[in-house]
Amino acid sequence: MSNDAHARPAGPGSGGGLTVPAPSHAERTRTLLASVPLGTLCTLTREPAGYPYGSLATFALSGGDPVFLISELAEHTRNLHADGRASLLVAESRPGDPLANGRVTLLGQCAPVPEDARLPAREAYLARHPGAAGYADFGDFAFWRLTVSGVRYIGGYGRMSWVDVDAYRGAQPDPVAPDAAAILEHMNDDHADALPVYCRAFAGVSNVGSALMTSIDRLGFEISVQTPEGTRTVRVAFPAPIAGKADARAALVALLREGRAKLANG
Amino acid sequence: MSNDAHARPAGPGSGGGLTVPAPSHAERTRTLLASVPLGTLCTLTREPAGYPYGSLATFALSGGDPVFLISELAEHTRNLHADGRASLLVAESRPGDPLANGRVTLLGQCAPVPEDARLPAREAYLARHPGAAGYADFGDFAFWRLTVSGVRYIGGYGRMSWVDVDAYRGAQPDPVAPDAAAILEHMNDDHADALPVYCRAFAGVSNVGSALMTSIDRLGFEISVQTPEGTRTVRVAFPAPIAGKADARAALVALLREGRAKLANG
Repeated sequence: MSNDAHARPAGPGSGGGLTVPAPSHAERTRTLLASVPLGTLCTLTREPAGYPYGSLATFALSGGDPVFLISELAEHTRNLHADGRASLLVAESRPGDPLANGRVTLLGQCAPVPEDARLPAREAYLARHPGAAGYADFGDFAFWRLTVSGVRYIGGYGRMSWVDVDAYRGAQPDPVAPDAAAILEHMNDDHADALPVYCRAFAGVSNVGSALMTSIDRLGFEISVQTPEGTRTVRVAFPAPIAGKADARAALVALLREGRAKLANG
Repeated sequence: MSNDAHARPAGPGSGGGLTVPAPSHAERTRTLLASVPLGTLCTLTREPAGYPYGSLATFALSGGDPVFLISELAEHTRNLHADGRASLLVAESRPGDPLANGRVTLLGQCAPVPEDARLPAREAYLARHPGAAGYADFGDFAFWRLTVSGVRYIGGYGRMSWVDVDAYRGAQPDPVAPDAAAILEHMNDDHADALPVYCRAFAGVSNVGSALMTSIDRLGFEISVQTPEGTRTVRVAFPAPIAGKADARAALVALLREGRAKLANG
């Protein structure tokens, strides 16, 4: 199992080969899990025994472990009673090539939440799935917890690792993520002229064709840019981590000013 | 494992308790698989051994069996080399409560496609995933086939069964499915006045509030209707199975005329 604390950017051309700070795979995993409340729960069949069985499950995280509210009548619950080995696959559902999107598999033992831990599990689950309040206390439904002992992250083609479980438990979701789509839309629609400046000034990409901001996080942002040599992905770091949407705006404006000054003096 | 050749409609009130013809779960399974080219492949881990491991996989059907094009470097491929037991979960991705949507789990042994069967598998896969032509013949990619020996269908809350494998293999996707969304939109936007007529004339629902056509297939259609007693789902059958969009239009117009006549005479 390999583990890279800081993922490399997706493509060439980010600051002359130096690694630009980017969210770790542990952090990316937590960000993905915070944005998608649904996954595939994988259990082991009873008869024929030992086949891996995928079923749909909604979940919430409680202390880094997925919590489920599942019926005693469901196949996966019966499977888990017989053998607690399980995993949960959670995938981004953005348009385009699904294999280019992020996904994570959490592996571990899955068991009913003990009575003394039921309240926080219930609160975490219902905060994310308020509609389940209507059956959360039915006798044939129970909260189950997958205690994570393995984390496989795939960020897209060629971006993958087994994530250290302690790093996973210690990581937090990116605070910019809930606003990322709106920021990208705004930058691409209203500030497209800024993108070539970032590429030239901070990544040394001189021959910039059309450019599209494709991601933003607390440590920086990425631009997909057409060059005579083909499509490149440029990553630009913020001078310091940002805390959210307001910070993002200020940091993007400051970097644009800095970039223009740099190009004018260069 | 139970098996119901004809699924019951989703709610009460369809023709006085009689079962209105509806696609079997075998047919619904084939329809779902024809509309979603992506699922969760479940395999068994090597170390620690025997955990069910979920990963994202694109697939195509070839003679009812899912075919994958996967890399020798991927975890799932390594898992399958060690133990071929596998399943594939495929889920609809419609908006709203995901647990109300359809999904299917196909269980079986997964193995490399033998050389003499490679051509049809390749054709089926590339017809559905033309973008994969660029790496289909790379040395570290190969076609694998999951030979289906178990089929679990879940159509939403309370609509589920183990589907007979021979029925699954013999079933065909619904021919109306590719046009269903457009037909529903058209009916709800432009012919909302027809829906109460169908409900009154063919399901005996007298006190009809707002109504929404929610599904259509070769055998009939369903309407979600508000009544003083709450929301009901009404299913109305076509006099004979229809073959596609043009048929749907003709059948819906004829039923409307018949329904109006029935109500005028009743």
